[in-house]
Amino acid sequence: MATNNGKIRACVVGATGYAGVEVARLVLNHPTFELTMVTDRKQAGTRLADIYPTLEGITDITLSLPEPEAIAAAVDVAFLAVPHTASLAVTPALIAAGVTVIDLSADYRIKDPAVYEAWYDTQHTSTDLLKEAVYGLPEVNRAQLVSLAQARAAGKPALVAAPGCYPTATTLAAAPALEAGIVTSSLVISDAISGVSGAGRTPNARTHYCHANESVEAYGVAKHRHTPEIEQTLSALAGSPIDVVFTPHLAPLTRGLLATVYLQVAEDVTADQVQAIYQGRYAGEKLVTMLPAGKMPQTGSVAGSGRAQVGVALDARRQHVLIASCAIDNLGKGAASQAVQAANIVFGLPETQGLDFTAPVV
Amino acid sequence: MATNNGKIRACVVGATGYAGVEVARLVLNHPTFELTMVTDRKQAGTRLADIYPTLEGITDITLSLPEPEAIAAAVDVAFLAVPHTASLAVTPALIAAGVTVIDLSADYRIKDPAVYEAWYDTQHTSTDLLKEAVYGLPEVNRAQLVSLAQARAAGKPALVAAPGCYPTATTLAAAPALEAGIVTSSLVISDAISGVSGAGRTPNARTHYCHANESVEAYGVAKHRHTPEIEQTLSALAGSPIDVVFTPHLAPLTRGLLATVYLQVAEDVTADQVQAIYQGRYAGEKLVTMLPAGKMPQTGSVAGSGRAQVGVALDARRQHVLIASCAIDNLGKGAASQAVQAANIVFGLPETQGLDFTAPVV
Amino acid sequence: MATNNGKIRACVVGATGYAGVEVARLVLNHPTFELTMVTDRKQAGTRLADIYPTLEGITDITLSLPEPEAIAAAVDVAFLAVPHTASLAVTPALIAAGVTVIDLSADYRIKDPAVYEAWYDTQHTSTDLLKEAVYGLPEVNRAQLVSLAQARAAGKPALVAAPGCYPTATTLAAAPALEAGIVTSSLVISDAISGVSGAGRTPNARTHYCHANESVEAYGVAKHRHTPEIEQTLSALAGSPIDVVFTPHLAPLTRGLLATVYLQVAEDVTADQVQAIYQGRYAGEKLVTMLPAGKMPQTGSVAGSGRAQVGVALDARRQHVLIASCAIDNLGKGAASQAVQAANIVFGLPETQGLDFTAPVV
Amino acid sequence: MATNNGKIRACVVGATGYAGVEVARLVLNHPTFELTMVTDRKQAGTRLADIYPTLEGITDITLSLPEPEAIAAAVDVAFLAVPHTASLAVTPALIAAGVTVIDLSADYRIKDPAVYEAWYDTQHTSTDLLKEAVYGLPEVNRAQLVSLAQARAAGKPALVAAPGCYPTATTLAAAPALEAGIVTSSLVISDAISGVSGAGRTPNARTHYCHANESVEAYGVAKHRHTPEIEQTLSALAGSPIDVVFTPHLAPLTRGLLATVYLQVAEDVTADQVQAIYQGRYAGEKLVTMLPAGKMPQTGSVAGSGRAQVGVALDARRQHVLIASCAIDNLGKGAASQAVQAANIVFGLPETQGLDFTAPVV
Repeated sequence: MATNNGKIRACVVGATGYAGVEVARLVLNHPTFELTMVTDRKQAGTRLADIYPTLEGITDITLSLPEPEAIAAAVDVAFLAVPHTASLAVTPALIAAGVTVIDLSADYRIKDPAVYEAWYDTQHTSTDLLKEAVYGLPEVNRAQLVSLAQARAAGKPALVAAPGCYPTATTLAAAPALEAGIVTSSLVISDAISGVSGAGRTPNARTHYCHANESVEAYGVAKHRHTPEIEQTLSALAGSPIDVVFTPHLAPLTRGLLATVYLQVAEDVTADQVQAIYQGRYAGEKLVTMLPAGKMPQTGSVAGSGRAQVGVALDARRQHVLIASCAIDNLGKGAASQAVQAANIVFGLPETQGLDFTAPVV
Repeated sequence: MATNNGKIRACVVGATGYAGVEVARLVLNHPTFELTMVTDRKQAGTRLADIYPTLEGITDITLSLPEPEAIAAAVDVAFLAVPHTASLAVTPALIAAGVTVIDLSADYRIKDPAVYEAWYDTQHTSTDLLKEAVYGLPEVNRAQLVSLAQARAAGKPALVAAPGCYPTATTLAAAPALEAGIVTSSLVISDAISGVSGAGRTPNARTHYCHANESVEAYGVAKHRHTPEIEQTLSALAGSPIDVVFTPHLAPLTRGLLATVYLQVAEDVTADQVQAIYQGRYAGEKLVTMLPAGKMPQTGSVAGSGRAQVGVALDARRQHVLIASCAIDNLGKGAASQAVQAANIVFGLPETQGLDFTAPVV
Repeated sequence: MATNNGKIRACVVGATGYAGVEVARLVLNHPTFELTMVTDRKQAGTRLADIYPTLEGITDITLSLPEPEAIAAAVDVAFLAVPHTASLAVTPALIAAGVTVIDLSADYRIKDPAVYEAWYDTQHTSTDLLKEAVYGLPEVNRAQLVSLAQARAAGKPALVAAPGCYPTATTLAAAPALEAGIVTSSLVISDAISGVSGAGRTPNARTHYCHANESVEAYGVAKHRHTPEIEQTLSALAGSPIDVVFTPHLAPLTRGLLATVYLQVAEDVTADQVQAIYQGRYAGEKLVTMLPAGKMPQTGSVAGSGRAQVGVALDARRQHVLIASCAIDNLGKGAASQAVQAANIVFGLPETQGLDFTAPVV
Repeated sequence: MATNNGKIRACVVGATGYAGVEVARLVLNHPTFELTMVTDRKQAGTRLADIYPTLEGITDITLSLPEPEAIAAAVDVAFLAVPHTASLAVTPALIAAGVTVIDLSADYRIKDPAVYEAWYDTQHTSTDLLKEAVYGLPEVNRAQLVSLAQARAAGKPALVAAPGCYPTATTLAAAPALEAGIVTSSLVISDAISGVSGAGRTPNARTHYCHANESVEAYGVAKHRHTPEIEQTLSALAGSPIDVVFTPHLAPLTRGLLATVYLQVAEDVTADQVQAIYQGRYAGEKLVTMLPAGKMPQTGSVAGSGRAQVGVALDARRQHVLIASCAIDNLGKGAASQAVQAANIVFGLPETQGLDFTAPVV
């Protein structure tokens, strides 16, 4: 599986997008994964450094076409940083060829094909693999990922559906309360703010600097495609159906995502209890930090990293509403870093290998 | 009342703060008000243009001390852009001297002194005037402001409590639904995002560029002082007690505030009905624009202006939650412009005089 | 010439671009000009407010095609906010039809067609009008604009070539020294920084938020097309050929342009003398403010306005180099406001009518 | 010298400032240096993570007082991230105690004490050590640093004066041309733009978000203290006195510094020759990348890293002016990373150990 120098060869499919190039960066910095191949359908033949001059003097790797045979011949693992449906088009062949696939698209996240088809407005053409795919949020799904690692070691196919950025932050904010059984209402509100890199690298009116700068706005209100993914995960954690009202906002920053989640809790739950539940829940997690009581997270604290920070407050006046806030880097824990974290598990590496650096503090 | 050239002389008390200098700017541009005096306790003797070089070549007006007698001798109207308690210290003397006071502080906003004292942690020392003060949100309180104008014309004291920025945006987002009686839950969630100017001009760790830039965070969660002000107004509009869970966020922009408000509505209410309710409610308002169906506001559209934009969406899947979003400039409709709008009414001027310019579009 | 209500009817050709919509905004706020028509070749039929939601509730004006006959039938003055060569295509017909043209493109700025052709890589097809066009920088060319006003009043054609943004700032920084004869070298270096709106509204890789944000870079080095325009103006002011090395930079802000200009001066010139020369030069100018000694301008002080601020410092150690810095809003004094200022002169209105408001201070 | 696990123990003196915490971050990520101690005169007793929440969950290291004896007892190397004069107060005792000192302040950079005293307006109280200090810009001073490493290994004191941020960028931009002997004028203009972190962490009016945001300005014009440091280095490279006119600007970004340097060159020098000179000069450098012909650097490409990128253009029309531009992260190659790079050399480690990671690309 590994190349002769002990490295695991990796390909980033869709390496010119923001999530893709972030995977490439993390692989370049990783002690075991090796960046062997990068692909892009439209810019094959171009050096990646010609697109991202940060990489000048670091790598001369050149983009190739995303052809499954070529990928399968060259690498052990493929990270798919592609739009939805593009993964459906390439994953079956990669899996058939024995490549481990970490899919950052939405194609294998939602277990019910009918729900996928309703929200994504396209048919799901790979429902067999969908059943096998493991949702790659290690902090709530580690056991399944470990099982997948064992299966992979035994020569079986391995497909990880890496979570969306908003579902990651919303889940990390809500999970401890839902798991602890203190939530009393099936209605959960997730109000989130994302940096502009979440809107992708394709230039358009919304991502133009002069539009995004000095302005905040909600978008995709009551219809964002991450809604069913959040509902699926929160319902599983709660053990009963959860209805999510989800409102994403765009704010003028490049990287960073903050989800502020509102959960009604039982009247007799105190702020101290909530804090203790969350502290206990994340005590063993290396990439999720529960902040001390009284502190709420800021996205600047996790930008450039694969970490999450969580903080909570309780409005216990007349209603009893828990406000739980989770900060991630949408390209880090919300995409690329989480994909590498899952890949680490699936390849039997230490879970945080290559991810436990300290990102810029200022 | 007016000076011999037909002008109404105005003083800005606390003119070095962001709201204060924005009042000063609007008065400089106003055809009837005249900027006669600006005060600051710490920087008396300094030209305002030495603090704000934008004003170089425009005005040489110099700060003086905020002494009530001097103010009363010089002006017809005083805009108080001061922290809470500072207004309590000066307003009674100004009112006694016959000056019309537009108070941008929180001191006269909350009708129940006990609530003020609980949230602001200080005694209310001017409860008689508190009873007289009119809450200056024209779009929901115009009749009272017009009555105050008549009283003022008859020689009576006039005190306006200009609303806070978050209460303004939350109220404008929620009012039509509450007034229409379609809201079914007493719990209203207001999740808001403000630019950094809302944190004031005093430099500190939070307003340092390198802290605020490229980061978003919640602050004052479950304890922000605008909460009781919002509850007072929304309860009055609903005709029954409303509990508000209010979470403000700080985002990296200078001016702008977006409130996204969540209201549960009756099951049989449709998106079209909601849109019609809001369109109808704001049809006659010159400074509040209801956006067409399907559009949500962005703060960049109102920055530098005294306008508000409102948009709505309905999540009508299982729960029935109305998401209403209002964008204002926290220093404009959220502070200075609204204060001038109220002053226009109180002095019998056209309500939007000096405020109906088109702010920068890009 | 004026419509029956005393208004002068105006058309903005190319109203969807940033300079175009800024002209439209200034005309909307102007007491004499009236926004009668806006055009765009690609989006005719669309409400301008659908593109710029700032205008929602302010104007329902709808874009039409830029057909000279229709424009000539509808308006008295046309502001052309179009790319170079597009003005060549429409200006002759407009002038022939008696419309006064304020051209914000580069087409009529450079008096020598050969220079235009060399730098803009296209033929000049309107050299007769080129001779008639007046360069519209009032602070250095007011007499010619006044003559043009007289000609226009006498029924003659009137064509103003509004200056580029970099030439405006560089000229205002350098003019007093060059006119005073204290400059000893023919080499002038202009190092300038512009906000992203200067790169235009068309989305591309460079104007993507995530590229422009948190980064500065030089562009067009040693080949920017504003170079010959700057050389033409500075040489005229100096009375001898000036060679300009011009380096523009892009910085992460929407509006604002700062030119820092380096001029070698005679050894016996003192800082006080330089300050006095500049103070005297701009003493009578309402839209150009010379800052007090020791102060340098910041672009934030002029953003949203049609004003310029200038400051100087002298490095008089071994070499004698004057550093003169001018801040403008690239869309204001650098484009739209200057165009309206020239139009005011040409129509015999007070030069700063509609432009002497105070822009946001914070 | 190293602790028993093969680590070299490090202290950051002044760890709460931006450069200090960046050194701390790099040491935390470094395979050989170990963060043993962090100090701050005012906040001793506080966890560093309480000041910089990025570090929550990463380190619980607590600030102590910067007492030389305690530092000497605990560490092998001290990074001084302190204001000028503060290093003079502590360095002699640290050196006497055998601690290797990497001084990020200006105190030991300027070889002539009279020049230091003239520009920094204070007496130099450590002129003996000043003679011994090695200027820590490896790309131009590597031989001296290697000699210092040998001396240190032999038990002698080792003091590195880490360069200033502007001198680093200006030197890297100008060095190849000056060394190659193609520069014909002794006057060098350096026009530079820095992010706000360069202004330090102390909140003040200039670093307030609302002042710095959406604005650019020059500061310290003709009197910035980095001027004599630049002149010292460029003169040494040229072999003759160079006069530097240096103008720094502040732009709205957190990290990043761009120096655009103007050098007159011989008439017969071509653009290709210049490109070749620069390519050759930096061919072997791992942390300085010369860009391909026609490309100029952007600071976003090096933010968060210890790398520099350089690009050049030649204006060869009438004057012959080379425009050389260098992008660094002011806290990286301009401060902390360069300090660690020098420390690597002085301790005989691979020069780029801990510094050759790929920073965020987006």
